[in-house]
Amino acid sequence: MSFYTGRYSQSHGATWNGIPLKAGELTLGDFMRKQGLATWLVGKTHFYPDLSGIKRMGNGLDSPTGQLLQQCGFQIFDQMEGLYPEGPKGRYNPLKSTYEKYLNDLGYSGQNPWNDWANSAEGENGEVLEGWYMQHAHRPARVAEEHSETAYTTFRALEFLIQHSQSPWCLHLSYIKPHWPYIAPSPYHQLFRDLELPSATRSENELKNPHPIYEAFTKIRVSRAFSKKEVRDRVLPTYLGLVKQLDDHLGRLFQFMKDQGSFDQTLIVFTSDHGDYLGDHWLGEKDWFHEPSVKIPLIIRDPSSLANSSRGSRSKELVESIDLIPTFIEALGGSFSDHILEGQSLKPFLHSEATKPIRECAISEYDYSVAPISLLLNADPKKARIYMVATQRWKYIYTVGYRPVLFDLQEDPMELNDLGDDVGYSKIKSELNDQLLEWSLRHSQRITKSDSELISRRGCSEGLGIRIGFW
Amino acid sequence: MSFYTGRYSQSHGATWNGIPLKAGELTLGDFMRKQGLATWLVGKTHFYPDLSGIKRMGNGLDSPTGQLLQQCGFQIFDQMEGLYPEGPKGRYNPLKSTYEKYLNDLGYSGQNPWNDWANSAEGENGEVLEGWYMQHAHRPARVAEEHSETAYTTFRALEFLIQHSQSPWCLHLSYIKPHWPYIAPSPYHQLFRDLELPSATRSENELKNPHPIYEAFTKIRVSRAFSKKEVRDRVLPTYLGLVKQLDDHLGRLFQFMKDQGSFDQTLIVFTSDHGDYLGDHWLGEKDWFHEPSVKIPLIIRDPSSLANSSRGSRSKELVESIDLIPTFIEALGGSFSDHILEGQSLKPFLHSEATKPIRECAISEYDYSVAPISLLLNADPKKARIYMVATQRWKYIYTVGYRPVLFDLQEDPMELNDLGDDVGYSKIKSELNDQLLEWSLRHSQRITKSDSELISRRGCSEGLGIRIGFW
Repeated sequence: MSFYTGRYSQSHGATWNGIPLKAGELTLGDFMRKQGLATWLVGKTHFYPDLSGIKRMGNGLDSPTGQLLQQCGFQIFDQMEGLYPEGPKGRYNPLKSTYEKYLNDLGYSGQNPWNDWANSAEGENGEVLEGWYMQHAHRPARVAEEHSETAYTTFRALEFLIQHSQSPWCLHLSYIKPHWPYIAPSPYHQLFRDLELPSATRSENELKNPHPIYEAFTKIRVSRAFSKKEVRDRVLPTYLGLVKQLDDHLGRLFQFMKDQGSFDQTLIVFTSDHGDYLGDHWLGEKDWFHEPSVKIPLIIRDPSSLANSSRGSRSKELVESIDLIPTFIEALGGSFSDHILEGQSLKPFLHSEATKPIRECAISEYDYSVAPISLLLNADPKKARIYMVATQRWKYIYTVGYRPVLFDLQEDPMELNDLGDDVGYSKIKSELNDQLLEWSLRHSQRITKSDSELISRRGCSEGLGIRIGFW
Repeated sequence: MSFYTGRYSQSHGATWNGIPLKAGELTLGDFMRKQGLATWLVGKTHFYPDLSGIKRMGNGLDSPTGQLLQQCGFQIFDQMEGLYPEGPKGRYNPLKSTYEKYLNDLGYSGQNPWNDWANSAEGENGEVLEGWYMQHAHRPARVAEEHSETAYTTFRALEFLIQHSQSPWCLHLSYIKPHWPYIAPSPYHQLFRDLELPSATRSENELKNPHPIYEAFTKIRVSRAFSKKEVRDRVLPTYLGLVKQLDDHLGRLFQFMKDQGSFDQTLIVFTSDHGDYLGDHWLGEKDWFHEPSVKIPLIIRDPSSLANSSRGSRSKELVESIDLIPTFIEALGGSFSDHILEGQSLKPFLHSEATKPIRECAISEYDYSVAPISLLLNADPKKARIYMVATQRWKYIYTVGYRPVLFDLQEDPMELNDLGDDVGYSKIKSELNDQLLEWSLRHSQRITKSDSELISRRGCSEGLGIRIGFW
């Protein structure tokens, strides 16, 4: 939702899956439509509509605005919310996907072909082995590669490009994998198997005097599993295979765009909303603030010739997800409202025009009110909040009710030595605490007047007859 | 707007006159209507409609919801935005008030009778002397007392009570005075004149090494004026006269309610949205955090017999304006959503059932982006923010870009000795800074799901088929 709004999690409030973005928030679609671009979705978003907010504003849910608000501002080309599993208490998401019909039409039978074919393998005797169980990660999916979700999503993107070749668009193409269930179609399931892969970044030292929240994360099932060598050894090659599969399909997509003539008219951003620990720091999933979790990929191809000077280069800037919407607006020649959008445009970096760092510190935020550790910590939803402040040198984690965490990224780039309760670092912790305070006190909701509108009002009331303090 | 939303200024974003409350915020009217009460306005509010937000949500501005959103959730019985002056650049507020027609009909002639009669006096030769100029504050208004704005507002409230005697209501009865222009009708203009009145709370010590923002406040016209003895001596009796006038009219209102039989069915809250320095601390107006500015009156008459035990008593609790909506909801037998409303119900205090203090610290917030001092300080609207954290013992003021301010309310109850740069108080400043940080990091925008809804979802995804970390 921070990608979609250009605003911090604390500002938009949709801090976890299933928490709807409140109806008043502007989204990517609002900003792009203002620049003349229809804004479409192909793939996964995990947005949930704020039905009561939409109704409270007087909208019929079937009205065009009501529809758009329910769709997080996107026009829907094809929405695929990832695998739709079903458990004893029902289906995770009631939405029916075109991918399921596609699989059925191809002869992948059953009520839930996505689960049973694309995310399952087969045993020696033809038995179905669900990809939810990681011991099956080395087996190929039951679906042919060209029918897998990554292939299908690309196929739908190509259809979109064909249908929308005549007018400007913004496409949110959101691939589901790499992601659990960790299972890849042939040949990707085995490309990286039996190769020597990097070992997990972890040390026994991390488990001595651990921060209570970090410790809770190490105790949940997925972390316990990935802390075992055999689990990581089996899953990591599958994960890398899924990365390679995505890479190949993006190549296919870009080749199509080149053939179509759209490649050099299109700003392309490749990114992700989270990493995956895969056993680093004794963790699975993506819920604490080490680099494997928060340092997400961000590759931007700016077709402008002004970007030639930076093409192919890497940046160490402290970029945040909220920087993308401002970047898009500036790439389209517009200017953005910094009383609503909280990020910065990356255009100065793409065009090698930047004269100072984008920011002194990067913020990441996490709400564990619903996460598995909430049960272990018996967490109050009002206090189940953690915040990261990272500078080029330090990473500081603020937690409500517990001590802070501190890593020296220069001396300890692998983040194996938590200095959070080391009194020798009180001064730096205090400074980072102050940076967090200044951030948290920002005006995030003063969205109805721009800074320049406020400045223009200074000293004006007297001219309208308000004469205060005259004698 | 914090009174109207039950939320901190930083949460709702309407931090200054002329900054519309964003369309997504729930207001008093929303909460009261849910409890079965129509919610009406008689008097002043200074709300501004978020027209672009309302339109963006797909509302016609003329639709019932569109109307209500434009009126800050109130049904309008009579809106009077205070005096409507006119200057060389036009009229401060284009809204026409029924009070102006009322005055004209009574023979108070002219285009702007509110200004020319109710807020002006006459000189020895019958010349009109505007109340904007404080040297006229000792003179009676040109309007008869029974036609003054306080009398008229009471008259309209009585009409409301007569018309709405048959169904439950919530009335926001918002008197304009006491307020500048400091001018009172006879006999109130002279009731307190020539009496010995308390001298201003101020000392020369305050002007030595002053905090830069406080210093800027001392330099604006109204502060320079009130720092002169003759100005305060002339205005203070007028201000007290206006207080006494209001007191008398409220007595008239309550007597009417007793005669009508509504008095003992009605929860009555008397409060104000700000104080007035009137020369205390070398200041005029109400824009810094000393007690004369932030310690507003709050008198509650709860008709319930359960409140008999507290009747007539005073409380030293750290109450905030945002506590009123929760109090109203509980008085009506409802329960409130603490993921939206940020205050606490005062019912436990009214019913002598409270077992602990309402809060450890009270917060006050101020945005000086548009205020006169913004010009003196050449302030960046993003940084023109000040925050007060007050405990029973300390008052701490956080400012962006400047040192903090600290008062010891026990040793220095008059707040004459700013300890903000006294290194001897570093520990307490650090503690208060931490309290501000915890407050500022609260979830203020996670308004689409309640805490109990979040708790109920814990551990549920597995039952819906999401099986993470199984081996």
